[in-house]
Amino acid sequence: MGVPLVYFNSWSEQYRRPFGAVRIGSVIYFSIQIEQDAAAEVNLMIQKDGNPFHEVLMNQAADESRRFTCKFKTEGTPGLYFYHFRITFQEEGNVQTIYYCKAADLYGGEGRIVSDLSQVEQYQMTCFQYADPAPEWYLHGVIYHIFVDRFFNGNRHKQMLHPKKNSFIYATEEDRPYYIRDKNDQIARWDFFGGNLSGIIAKLVNLKRLGVTILYLSPIFEARSNHKYDTGDFQKIDPMFGDEKIFKKLVSKAGQLGIRVILDGVFNHVGVDSVYFNRYGNYGSGGAYQDASSPYHDWFTFHGDRDHYDCWWSITDLPTVNKAKISYQKFIYDSEESVVDTWTETGIGGWRLDVADELSDGFIAGIRNALQRHEKKGEHKVLIGEVWEDATNKIAYGKRRHYLEGGMLHGVMNYPFRDLIVNLINGKINARQAVRSFMTLKSNYPPEALLANMNNLGTHDTERILTVFQESQRKLGLAVWLLMALPGVPCIYYGDEAGVVGGKDPDNRSFYPWGKENQQLKAVFQEAIHARRTDPHLQHGAFYPFSLGPLFGCLRYVSMNQFTVLLVNPTRDSVNISLGQLKDETNGSLLRSCLQSLDLNGDRSEPMEYHYYHFDRS
Amino acid sequence: MGVPLVYFNSWSEQYRRPFGAVRIGSVIYFSIQIEQDAAAEVNLMIQKDGNPFHEVLMNQAADESRRFTCKFKTEGTPGLYFYHFRITFQEEGNVQTIYYCKAADLYGGEGRIVSDLSQVEQYQMTCFQYADPAPEWYLHGVIYHIFVDRFFNGNRHKQMLHPKKNSFIYATEEDRPYYIRDKNDQIARWDFFGGNLSGIIAKLVNLKRLGVTILYLSPIFEARSNHKYDTGDFQKIDPMFGDEKIFKKLVSKAGQLGIRVILDGVFNHVGVDSVYFNRYGNYGSGGAYQDASSPYHDWFTFHGDRDHYDCWWSITDLPTVNKAKISYQKFIYDSEESVVDTWTETGIGGWRLDVADELSDGFIAGIRNALQRHEKKGEHKVLIGEVWEDATNKIAYGKRRHYLEGGMLHGVMNYPFRDLIVNLINGKINARQAVRSFMTLKSNYPPEALLANMNNLGTHDTERILTVFQESQRKLGLAVWLLMALPGVPCIYYGDEAGVVGGKDPDNRSFYPWGKENQQLKAVFQEAIHARRTDPHLQHGAFYPFSLGPLFGCLRYVSMNQFTVLLVNPTRDSVNISLGQLKDETNGSLLRSCLQSLDLNGDRSEPMEYHYYHFDRS
Repeated sequence: MGVPLVYFNSWSEQYRRPFGAVRIGSVIYFSIQIEQDAAAEVNLMIQKDGNPFHEVLMNQAADESRRFTCKFKTEGTPGLYFYHFRITFQEEGNVQTIYYCKAADLYGGEGRIVSDLSQVEQYQMTCFQYADPAPEWYLHGVIYHIFVDRFFNGNRHKQMLHPKKNSFIYATEEDRPYYIRDKNDQIARWDFFGGNLSGIIAKLVNLKRLGVTILYLSPIFEARSNHKYDTGDFQKIDPMFGDEKIFKKLVSKAGQLGIRVILDGVFNHVGVDSVYFNRYGNYGSGGAYQDASSPYHDWFTFHGDRDHYDCWWSITDLPTVNKAKISYQKFIYDSEESVVDTWTETGIGGWRLDVADELSDGFIAGIRNALQRHEKKGEHKVLIGEVWEDATNKIAYGKRRHYLEGGMLHGVMNYPFRDLIVNLINGKINARQAVRSFMTLKSNYPPEALLANMNNLGTHDTERILTVFQESQRKLGLAVWLLMALPGVPCIYYGDEAGVVGGKDPDNRSFYPWGKENQQLKAVFQEAIHARRTDPHLQHGAFYPFSLGPLFGCLRYVSMNQFTVLLVNPTRDSVNISLGQLKDETNGSLLRSCLQSLDLNGDRSEPMEYHYYHFDRS
Repeated sequence: MGVPLVYFNSWSEQYRRPFGAVRIGSVIYFSIQIEQDAAAEVNLMIQKDGNPFHEVLMNQAADESRRFTCKFKTEGTPGLYFYHFRITFQEEGNVQTIYYCKAADLYGGEGRIVSDLSQVEQYQMTCFQYADPAPEWYLHGVIYHIFVDRFFNGNRHKQMLHPKKNSFIYATEEDRPYYIRDKNDQIARWDFFGGNLSGIIAKLVNLKRLGVTILYLSPIFEARSNHKYDTGDFQKIDPMFGDEKIFKKLVSKAGQLGIRVILDGVFNHVGVDSVYFNRYGNYGSGGAYQDASSPYHDWFTFHGDRDHYDCWWSITDLPTVNKAKISYQKFIYDSEESVVDTWTETGIGGWRLDVADELSDGFIAGIRNALQRHEKKGEHKVLIGEVWEDATNKIAYGKRRHYLEGGMLHGVMNYPFRDLIVNLINGKINARQAVRSFMTLKSNYPPEALLANMNNLGTHDTERILTVFQESQRKLGLAVWLLMALPGVPCIYYGDEAGVVGGKDPDNRSFYPWGKENQQLKAVFQEAIHARRTDPHLQHGAFYPFSLGPLFGCLRYVSMNQFTVLLVNPTRDSVNISLGQLKDETNGSLLRSCLQSLDLNGDRSEPMEYHYYHFDRS
């Protein structure tokens, strides 16, 4: 006899339905197959995040299929459930207990049996409060992420307007970025190329031609650094970048071309050299550092004297703001004249929140609320957060976060997607591992959030994707097509399409190579973006990743008559496409049927080749 | 009885004549006074530098004056003599020997008795080959020392022409200079303000108005750094500075205003990034580093492999050239197309030789010779050397140097003068110490060289003089007047007249504060320069420093009817001027007579006040 054969697959609606993340209050049907007559008792062991387990007795189905089933009603506040199964059976007269839980690779889907409770890895089930779709213009868009200082200088003679005292300008636009540090490894002088808002205005037509519909700008408010994550004055455009008039012109000119602007909201900390902290007295005699009676004083947490204060990641240049202070909340989002209100009023499309993990759920919800005030006046605004991990189960500072469960973020910057694409194409994981990873994300994220994530192949915080791919254009081509085919809104880091290379910060922030773009690569981007923008399946089709042996595939499904398949060969080998190798993690027939319609069998796939199939029999 | 009273004063013609440095072959008369009847034998002990002593028996004068005298004929090659006196006398039946030599403070003038030969400090007597006066235009001029990158950008929109790749430009002209160093403390990127030759052309009229008649430019040949002491190509003007055409225009436009240009000749080493060494291959495939068969290969001294080579002060950026190589001498000065010939041909006034100590006497004489070739065609050229100490007795690399003895340098950069002025005004030495120091220099230097020294209050290698003076404008005013009154050609470091402050390199190389000049200070400079340029006594009058108690004075004497006196009060006190306090180190009556003509007695001198007396009864 021995241990019974047990099977459950969290991704298959035969075993758990509905699929994936559900609205709180939903009833979930569970089913588990046990190939053993002696199974005495099967229990679904399910717990609301942080609470005790419910034991739900599962009943053997009447149809002799050896299935045990139960239903479970989710309830209360939104959040996560975790579950596994407990199976007791008779063996040689003794009662034995085993557990069925998530597989050792920590993906979902098919699980495994363990005999010891301590080995149990639980399945996750995300429950959201309500479906919270991002604005249509966003969901159907293609984003271009501009690091403003590094894009284009729109001044007539490329001079710097309002250069910052004791800073440096790169001698040529081809120079490699370099941090000028002192002996203590601190930034001694900031370095600028001189990109500015009028430069972006000047290049809007180029961006339009590339297919871009959304600009996500690095922070633009006054700050000492080139990156401007050290805000000096939230109410002022950095004078090197331009002024409010130029910014409004950018928003308006972009709007005329159907391009929206998303701003980078940096609300966790400010610059040490700011209206609020004012360590160096550059903002007069006020500010928390200069003046203990400053209205900003209680925004900061001082320890003993004014030279010791809470700051972000021990960077003394970035004092952290105590976001629980009502006056700060009022200033940022909770008043008619708040920072969020003021700048949203200019007609921008929304915000990306820097280090969202550092902002409380309440703070984020407050910002979202402020955006909703504006939606009454016009179009919908988007709110995206910077989260580096799976945002559905992120624990930050000891607290489970509820970013995507309704009323907070529409989506997050999807670094896990990037990692998957990079690892797949660089051969660190195989196609099936990639599929299982994508399925994990698909099942964890609320469906509306999955579509609203800001997917990327690289940002100002990562190595350049072409460098990650050892400067292989073929690899990058594959990645770009994946970026366009996967669910979520694709975001291109400025210059990636032009062949810009570079290691980590600051090397990834070189100036856009105007006049020296890699035109071949740009054409690949342009084509893939065009597909994304014109193929509705890629924008809102249901997402099914799959593998065909070494090949990775992505089905974006609307109906059996309307779907798109992207198939990529991330290997160094020529591969014969064979449907016999299909591995469908969802255990369904939908994928197979679609692929059969495409009549792929026997086609050949060359190394690093992609195959784009748009099927429309409507 | 005891030790006899002995007196000798090397600065007084009563004791040694003629005064000071003499032409080789001259006969020198020595006289020493000994207040003791029992003096048996007095000998002048005199040696040619590095040779054994001559003992010259001195005879008691017939006039009962208790003086012993002798004469001594200098001979052979030019150079130094050193001397002291040996006196033997009877004491209580024994023969005693004592020595009279230079005083313990190591100045010349009055000396002291020592009983032990090991305590003897010898007097110096400089013998030159021939009087080698500098050109008249130079001797009567006022020099302005420009660090080209830091003076003025003459381009229309202040853009950089031909900026160097991977270098930095200061964001504003007010920025403090800063070396951008890597973790090994090496320069990682060079920093530029963007001053250039057309900027100097644009400001010629301003310089003319200030009273300047000579420009001494920091190196202008192509080089990677901002200072350009790391020559990349001796045959090319650095493209950021301009080109040959612009340089010729500068020389010509300056000439029209009566202003000559002196170039900085950096011939001891070149840049690692040069036509000659070419470490980084920026100059093609040639050069000593790239190509062992390069014609430049034997200019350098490699040790084992090409990465180990002789360089200046262990700065691997500056490989030293073996100046004994005939091909290098030909290249620098010993051919019609040599570097010195080519650039002298453009009409410049002459050269300043960087690190002259590193160049052999023969190499310097070779350059001087090259200049003389040009003198046949036109006006006289000047040759000045960078020497930091008293250049008459400098030993460099174990060898006594002969810079100023004819046929080599006309003069040197006079840092000892600067030190004296600074120490006097900052109260580190008193007036009498300053007088004794000046007398030492006056007596050591050949008279023509003393007039040709390039005197300064600061250069690109020193702290800014206003900073040295704790930003006291009064102190700087005093110093400027001394600079104008002392023998030697005054050289003003750009911006000193405008109130520029700064510590050591690079802080002393900030950009000229156009539009923000200290006008008060500039007026002081202008007035003092005007005095220098219009008072012939200051240009060629004989020089007698003196003290009147705490006051320091300088007489520039043409005749009893034509002379100028500058009297300064370097103290914090009001002082009543009293001729009774006159201390004349030369033991003569000339000074007293002049001062009496001025009728100074009873005048009052306020702290840091100067008194300028021009006396002309002709």
